[in-house]
Amino acid sequence: MILVNGREQTHIAVGDRGLQYGDGLFETIAVVAGRPRWWQRHWQRLAAGCERLAIDCVDHTRVWDEVCKVCDGIEQGVLKVIVTRGEGGRGYRPAVGGEATRILAIYPWPNYPDAYRRQGVAMRFCTTRLGHNTALAGLKHLNRLEQVLARREWDDPEIVEGVMLDGDEHVIAGTMSNLFMVNNGQLRTPALSHCGVAGVMRGIILDLAAEAGIPREQITLNRRDLLQADEVFMTNALIGIWPVRRIEQQEYEIGPLTASLHKRLESMTASLP
Amino acid sequence: MILVNGREQTHIAVGDRGLQYGDGLFETIAVVAGRPRWWQRHWQRLAAGCERLAIDCVDHTRVWDEVCKVCDGIEQGVLKVIVTRGEGGRGYRPAVGGEATRILAIYPWPNYPDAYRRQGVAMRFCTTRLGHNTALAGLKHLNRLEQVLARREWDDPEIVEGVMLDGDEHVIAGTMSNLFMVNNGQLRTPALSHCGVAGVMRGIILDLAAEAGIPREQITLNRRDLLQADEVFMTNALIGIWPVRRIEQQEYEIGPLTASLHKRLESMTASLP
Repeated sequence: MILVNGREQTHIAVGDRGLQYGDGLFETIAVVAGRPRWWQRHWQRLAAGCERLAIDCVDHTRVWDEVCKVCDGIEQGVLKVIVTRGEGGRGYRPAVGGEATRILAIYPWPNYPDAYRRQGVAMRFCTTRLGHNTALAGLKHLNRLEQVLARREWDDPEIVEGVMLDGDEHVIAGTMSNLFMVNNGQLRTPALSHCGVAGVMRGIILDLAAEAGIPREQITLNRRDLLQADEVFMTNALIGIWPVRRIEQQEYEIGPLTASLHKRLESMTASLP
Repeated sequence: MILVNGREQTHIAVGDRGLQYGDGLFETIAVVAGRPRWWQRHWQRLAAGCERLAIDCVDHTRVWDEVCKVCDGIEQGVLKVIVTRGEGGRGYRPAVGGEATRILAIYPWPNYPDAYRRQGVAMRFCTTRLGHNTALAGLKHLNRLEQVLARREWDDPEIVEGVMLDGDEHVIAGTMSNLFMVNNGQLRTPALSHCGVAGVMRGIILDLAAEAGIPREQITLNRRDLLQADEVFMTNALIGIWPVRRIEQQEYEIGPLTASLHKRLESMTASLP
């Protein structure tokens, strides 16, 4: 089912700024037993993103009603919520008082092999770089050509994810995930002040680490930090945590910190309403 | 009139990658007396862009038929052509053999005051920066949030355009135009190897300058080069050339090189079929 501004329809206007300029934001949300998982965090990020882009954010009650409607009866699936600045304006200049477009769509759950979660995944380095833009950094906005080009770089099914660097050769993220590494017992994830998406699962992992008293930092990291790490894992809201067992020729064990966070995440998830 | 893949319709599928990721390109074309102006150049840029993004470009004959159809009877207007990677794929990863979506839409001609062309315009510096990405530099792709944010920075109707810089504080372009300046008889425009759109009119101006034997260069330029220039003008495919008479507090005369290129452009335009 797809709802556009509350109505069941499969299409949006050609003039919508989401298409014309990528002028909007999105959330990709796991749906389990008819409920969107981590909804509060997804909503908070979406609302904060709308505020940063000055898109008139949609009323939560209304969206929540629609979310419940599209998720109803879905045993396991993916909810994608898109909010665009809507139609109108003169060229790049948005219309004053323009009304946002909200799109809710349910997609099938991607059937990831269970081995990814249990035995870890192989990754590669992408050559496509992430451009710096502090005004957009952290946002899950609709300008995603860099990720599309990066994901096009390989079709080896053994490689599950690609590491993306910025123009300064700093490690930022996977094409569809955030990255964590452990060096000497310290949990580290790239700072996202210049580019990258501040994932919902990234936030959950940092909170879990804080609760567990695990030393952690969001800092500038390079290829060498990643390759010399004791443990590496990737995260997103659908997969949770996947250990990384190999990046190019560098192999990793699934280490104790990854295992411990994995366990904490599973018990947190099990306690969800 | 709007044509989507040749059919008259006003909407596109929510699943189109143009909306989902900004995965596509566009052209904004002046239509005069039922004909798209500078079509060959627009088409060449679009086709080259499709090749760079590996979007299966549409057959020229088919598009040309549709262009003629939507432009028919339009005395003066704007044709927007959008080509997206179409639907499908798994997340960021494009589908193999996916079919592009082409959208042709006619919009009213923007009624710019004649004074812009004759007496010049006032500009400002934007604080929104353009991110570097060599894979996307020069392309008129659908990821335009930087331009949207930059254009949102002012609403003073006296200010017609904003100068955008990159993260290295180099001058790149206007939000919807390319920039030229003249220093000591030398025509200069920012190099677009890291970001910015290689405008059709920018190409025409560089060709006209070459024909006229005017020394010209595409180089790295900073705010100081711009402010100390003898002449400044902006270009795009709709406006042709607009002289710049002021940037912030710095004032400029309409100089001889601007006037000469303006005249050459007008005579070239007059000779179009």
